[in-house]
Amino acid sequence: MTAGDSIALQEVGEHPLGYRVVDLMLGGGRCHFLPNTTASSCRADSRDVTKLAQEKYGWTYINSRAEFDDLKSGKNVKLPLLGLFSDTDIPFELDRRNMNDIYPSLDEMARTALAALEAATKDSDKGFFLMIEGSRIDHAGHGNDPAAQVHEVLAYDRAFQSVVDFLDNSDTEGALVATSDHETGGLAVARQLHASYPQYLWYPEVLANASHSAEYLSRALRAHIEKTNESGKKLRHFVENKLVEEGLGVMDATDEEIELVISNPALSAYAFAEIISRRAQIGWSTHGHSAVDVNIYGYAAEALRGNHENIEVGGFLRDYLNVDVDAITSKLNSTSRASSEVSLLAAGMGDQALFGHYEERLQKNLPQ
Amino acid sequence: MTAGDSIALQEVGEHPLGYRVVDLMLGGGRCHFLPNTTASSCRADSRDVTKLAQEKYGWTYINSRAEFDDLKSGKNVKLPLLGLFSDTDIPFELDRRNMNDIYPSLDEMARTALAALEAATKDSDKGFFLMIEGSRIDHAGHGNDPAAQVHEVLAYDRAFQSVVDFLDNSDTEGALVATSDHETGGLAVARQLHASYPQYLWYPEVLANASHSAEYLSRALRAHIEKTNESGKKLRHFVENKLVEEGLGVMDATDEEIELVISNPALSAYAFAEIISRRAQIGWSTHGHSAVDVNIYGYAAEALRGNHENIEVGGFLRDYLNVDVDAITSKLNSTSRASSEVSLLAAGMGDQALFGHYEERLQKNLPQ
Repeated sequence: MTAGDSIALQEVGEHPLGYRVVDLMLGGGRCHFLPNTTASSCRADSRDVTKLAQEKYGWTYINSRAEFDDLKSGKNVKLPLLGLFSDTDIPFELDRRNMNDIYPSLDEMARTALAALEAATKDSDKGFFLMIEGSRIDHAGHGNDPAAQVHEVLAYDRAFQSVVDFLDNSDTEGALVATSDHETGGLAVARQLHASYPQYLWYPEVLANASHSAEYLSRALRAHIEKTNESGKKLRHFVENKLVEEGLGVMDATDEEIELVISNPALSAYAFAEIISRRAQIGWSTHGHSAVDVNIYGYAAEALRGNHENIEVGGFLRDYLNVDVDAITSKLNSTSRASSEVSLLAAGMGDQALFGHYEERLQKNLPQ
Repeated sequence: MTAGDSIALQEVGEHPLGYRVVDLMLGGGRCHFLPNTTASSCRADSRDVTKLAQEKYGWTYINSRAEFDDLKSGKNVKLPLLGLFSDTDIPFELDRRNMNDIYPSLDEMARTALAALEAATKDSDKGFFLMIEGSRIDHAGHGNDPAAQVHEVLAYDRAFQSVVDFLDNSDTEGALVATSDHETGGLAVARQLHASYPQYLWYPEVLANASHSAEYLSRALRAHIEKTNESGKKLRHFVENKLVEEGLGVMDATDEEIELVISNPALSAYAFAEIISRRAQIGWSTHGHSAVDVNIYGYAAEALRGNHENIEVGGFLRDYLNVDVDAITSKLNSTSRASSEVSLLAAGMGDQALFGHYEERLQKNLPQ
């Protein structure tokens, strides 16, 4: 069982304490919820977590845009609600915006969740806690793809604004805290391309010209090769015209750049990303995480204004929500299953291995 | 007249409004104050600004460590005081700490200035404003030298702490605001050295092992070549043993790296910096400036806590000090000399040209 498989089980209630703790989940990652006897599963075992969720823990399960639309922006939600709209990741916003009939946006999911949770807690004095993750900002960083990344950030920003609007319009007191657990890619908005001393500028219009993410174009390349078996001049023509010019919006790719794309289709996403990064003059230092300070953005969360240690974010939320984290931690530590989870992490399923999976998925060309 | 020459004149009082506005200046850059008839001058003209300062504007002028020590940490200061302790830049802290008998530290200068200005304003209700610049953090960024940079930051941090201590111990109300006008180098604390997926780490101990800055070692290399006229195996031996191993603390430099140092002595600082950056796994994207958000650190400056537009820093100081910036701006704009200053900037002496000068100085091997 992979960490992702284990997380899917825990999310629906199958965890050391044995009861459901979440009321609503919307997003991707469906393959971890489906048994490995089905084609779109990525589980290592044959458990059907969607079935377990519904039968043992009482979840309402939906898995399509049509069913999401039936939620009527949160006015028609029966909790607990599990909505999984993609087998793996929901596509980057740069690509998703042209597949809006398949995948809901982060902002739509955020607004739906807020409305549903507000209605469900209107007679409660406990309120609710909602975690909204712009999870693929990180993936765009891993891929060193600045066009994908800026659209992920803007999509997150729209969800952020919806939360601000919600707080402004709600009768109930609330707070918004937005931050990141790390930076990815070593992004630098400045890149010296030549030995001569650089101009101080970058080119955002290059990012605006892109119609697709490097990840999308890499998948398109591999699908095209598989379908047509093209190579040589014909394939170069396809890559240059359909992928680089139409997809990336780059009209001056060099022969070497096109060759790099073709030479390793499995890692062509990196080559596409480099083509656009160079022209935007965006620098990257790694496909992994970096140690730079990350910002905190808040609303009605004055205590977190300024520079803070990361544990202070959790501390603020714990105090604001008045929850006893120590009690639940010691309860979890005392369960027999806790130690096996720890072993799982120690065996290499920790953060780094998890995040490394993006590169693996990128190369394996897993279905969306 | 270069921008630096013009700034030197303005600093002592020779500016459009025609009177002295600064009471104390300590630092480097002496060559801009000396006439081009002297060996250590870098002025384009023959004006002796140190003489002008003393004779026309009443400055006390000192230019040595001994004279600085005579200030008795600020207890023996006669204002206005101009102290210039280096012809060009004061060496990077990484090098300066071994030349403490020549150059005072940033912290020493800060404490001296605070004590002198506090004493001078003890009967005034206007107080004072002190600008302390850790100016060579930027240079280390331009040079992509992480060992030099971390020591510059630590030196600035010591001065910062001295200001905090001063505010804690002073009877007079005060505020501390620390920020930067930009980042330099596109520093990333994470660097992927190989195609394989990176570990999430970096090696601070590599920086701790360095005894000298890349700038210092580059100067040492050029001085050695000039003195000995060595080349080939003998020069490689010197570079490897004396500069890379003893100076940088790097024991495993490759032949290619040593060759790169030797192949272009004028730009060898970049090669030294790259040797140490790779081993510390620190990434850089440019020798110029980047557009990343910079932090604000304050003390008794609550209004600046959190994320702010850069103009809000100036706005806070203007309001805190209760100075009429608009009045002085319109006064400056109405002087006939103002337009010639603007022309000077428009003619390419603006920020970018100024900062580009660090690279030029680095290559020209100007005396310290």
